Amino acid sequence: MKTRLFTPGPTPVPEPVMLRMAQPIIHHRTDEFRAVIRRVSDNLSYLFCTAQPVLTLTSSGTGAMEAAIVNTMSAGEELLFVNGGKFGERWGEIARAYGLTTHELAVPWGTAATPQQILEMVAQHPAVRAVCLTHSETSTGVFTDVQAIARALRQQGYEGLVMVDGITAVGAHEMRFDDWGLDVVVTGSQKGLMIPPGLAFIALSQRAWEFNKTSTLPKFYFNLAEARASLEADDTPWTPAITLMLGLDEALQMIRHEGVENVWARHARLAAALRAGALTLGLQLFASPSSNAVTSITLPENGSTFMKLLKEKYRVTVAAGQESLKGKIFRVSHLGYYDEADMLSILFAIESALTDVGHQHSEGGGLAAAQKVFNQPHTAPGEPT
Amino acid sequence: MKTRLFTPGPTPVPEPVMLRMAQPIIHHRTDEFRAVIRRVSDNLSYLFCTAQPVLTLTSSGTGAMEAAIVNTMSAGEELLFVNGGKFGERWGEIARAYGLTTHELAVPWGTAATPQQILEMVAQHPAVRAVCLTHSETSTGVFTDVQAIARALRQQGYEGLVMVDGITAVGAHEMRFDDWGLDVVVTGSQKGLMIPPGLAFIALSQRAWEFNKTSTLPKFYFNLAEARASLEADDTPWTPAITLMLGLDEALQMIRHEGVENVWARHARLAAALRAGALTLGLQLFASPSSNAVTSITLPENGSTFMKLLKEKYRVTVAAGQESLKGKIFRVSHLGYYDEADMLSILFAIESALTDVGHQHSEGGGLAAAQKVFNQPHTAPGEPT
Repeated sequence: MKTRLFTPGPTPVPEPVMLRMAQPIIHHRTDEFRAVIRRVSDNLSYLFCTAQPVLTLTSSGTGAMEAAIVNTMSAGEELLFVNGGKFGERWGEIARAYGLTTHELAVPWGTAATPQQILEMVAQHPAVRAVCLTHSETSTGVFTDVQAIARALRQQGYEGLVMVDGITAVGAHEMRFDDWGLDVVVTGSQKGLMIPPGLAFIALSQRAWEFNKTSTLPKFYFNLAEARASLEADDTPWTPAITLMLGLDEALQMIRHEGVENVWARHARLAAALRAGALTLGLQLFASPSSNAVTSITLPENGSTFMKLLKEKYRVTVAAGQESLKGKIFRVSHLGYYDEADMLSILFAIESALTDVGHQHSEGGGLAAAQKVFNQPHTAPGEPT
Repeated sequence: MKTRLFTPGPTPVPEPVMLRMAQPIIHHRTDEFRAVIRRVSDNLSYLFCTAQPVLTLTSSGTGAMEAAIVNTMSAGEELLFVNGGKFGERWGEIARAYGLTTHELAVPWGTAATPQQILEMVAQHPAVRAVCLTHSETSTGVFTDVQAIARALRQQGYEGLVMVDGITAVGAHEMRFDDWGLDVVVTGSQKGLMIPPGLAFIALSQRAWEFNKTSTLPKFYFNLAEARASLEADDTPWTPAITLMLGLDEALQMIRHEGVENVWARHARLAAALRAGALTLGLQLFASPSSNAVTSITLPENGSTFMKLLKEKYRVTVAAGQESLKGKIFRVSHLGYYDEADMLSILFAIESALTDVGHQHSEGGGLAAAQKVFNQPHTAPGEPT
């Protein structure tokens, strides 16, 4: 049986990306590489739906989250974050490491913060200068409606920043940076961008760049004003991760060719099919509302045997639960380079492992449920929506 | 004519490394990847000649330099750095960005600081808590005797840290972290380690880890205590650059197979041959003493035509001078995956371009001079020195 990867980062790397990265390395201060920087930058702005530059950092997504804070905030300022999972929590950890005063809106893991809850917290703490959200919380599979939250905040006259961890959301969910009035969005390379980990991306709004001018937190490697100045000269402040940039160039061209709206629609369709299949097999979904990047499913009876079977007998790698969710859920990714048949592969593995642990369900029911979703009318790949 | 790369980062990537990185990606929280982390960690300690853990960061070498400072120092403390080139200067820039008080020992670019100069500066500024050096200054091609400086400092009873930028030195020059009493050494992946850029490495001495306990500078992504704790569990705090780690695993096995002392000896031999060839062609060496990683050569008459010919007619990529050395020197790398015949390739290109611009020299003299160096008795690859 083939080995298949269904984790929300790293996600499978398309063959043209692998081959592009395997070519003899080129130097980064050359016309050839400057053309790559220009094309990548243009395509990243397309992906983020923004006229702002999207900056590329050599780091994990966490590095870009840190960059978001140290480039816009000053010591002692107040910041609100939503703790609805491990990654939401991380906003608070970074802010505290840099001496900010943090206010935590804790929501039960598996659920999302509402605009109303955010408005109440901001009303209680009017000095809050940044609201930090997680568009798709990878640890729980929850989707947060950052568009509605940003709109509600602006309607109330909030003048601080709306910062979004879009690490597993960008490419999976509609995200219109400019139209939605977001101030900072970060993402990582090993997610919807379909390349190996090692790069992170960040966009700042005009408002965030204004905050940058007065931000006093120390920064050097993650200094975004430097990165922006370099980008204007088709350059980077430090040696970039050249091979990953070349892979990115290839991956972004694939996204642009498919069309970003079609990419979003594909993720919605695959997620809906997987959820329908899992429910038909008698499994319970953990997250509500559910992200289109990753589906969290409550572990069935004999959970550890079930996980072992998936990995060893059916050769699919899914993600286990993290921290308090360890042993309670498993997470299946449909983020990035996946199509319909991939969802059938993972449903086949899940059903087979369920059968092996003695779970009761209709034979082939998961696959049939997925097929029903695929049969529903939808915009075909390649057609503009 | 084939295209050949002679830049001091990125350096050529060996074919087995390229092929290892081109395989389907694996997840990092798996037994398979934990085995890679263990083997890489063991081989990095071998390369650094240390019993300390060598930590791997996803960043450029500059990120590791920042990590060195923010993990050992506190705001307001004093630090001495040597400005003998662009990278020595960088130590000071990072330190100032984090609010340290810096003392600069400026030496003419192209020359190295002596132990005596360092001792005098430390005597003048007894509150200095860290002396920051550059083992091989990539921008000038200068070698600094960090072993002699560390020894002199300890003999004078200096109790601060000796921090070394080993970015182009590790793998090219003898460096015995424990025996020499160094406190911090950093390096990058696209140098002597022969893999693409995107990873950086850092080792801390027992003394530096003591400094870490009281260091108050803010850090999160580059928190080395977290990285060390993760490494003890064969893990990383953040998603690592998986493909680069796999390439690193391959490259380190090549270094271990050749033997680190043989790797140092090979770099010395190739550098000596290139220098002998350049001198025989009537060129002038810029750096004294010269690094075994990169040779800086004063540009001949018609320098810009000469550089254009190298790139376009002879298809070799060398590095130009940076900042104040732009238009004055060019730099040829022999760092990483090079052998004797590679030095003949670059000497052939240099001689041919010199002939094209009307430079006078003995035909084939550069190649003959290199061959003489290669004919001198030396330890054969594979034999311990």
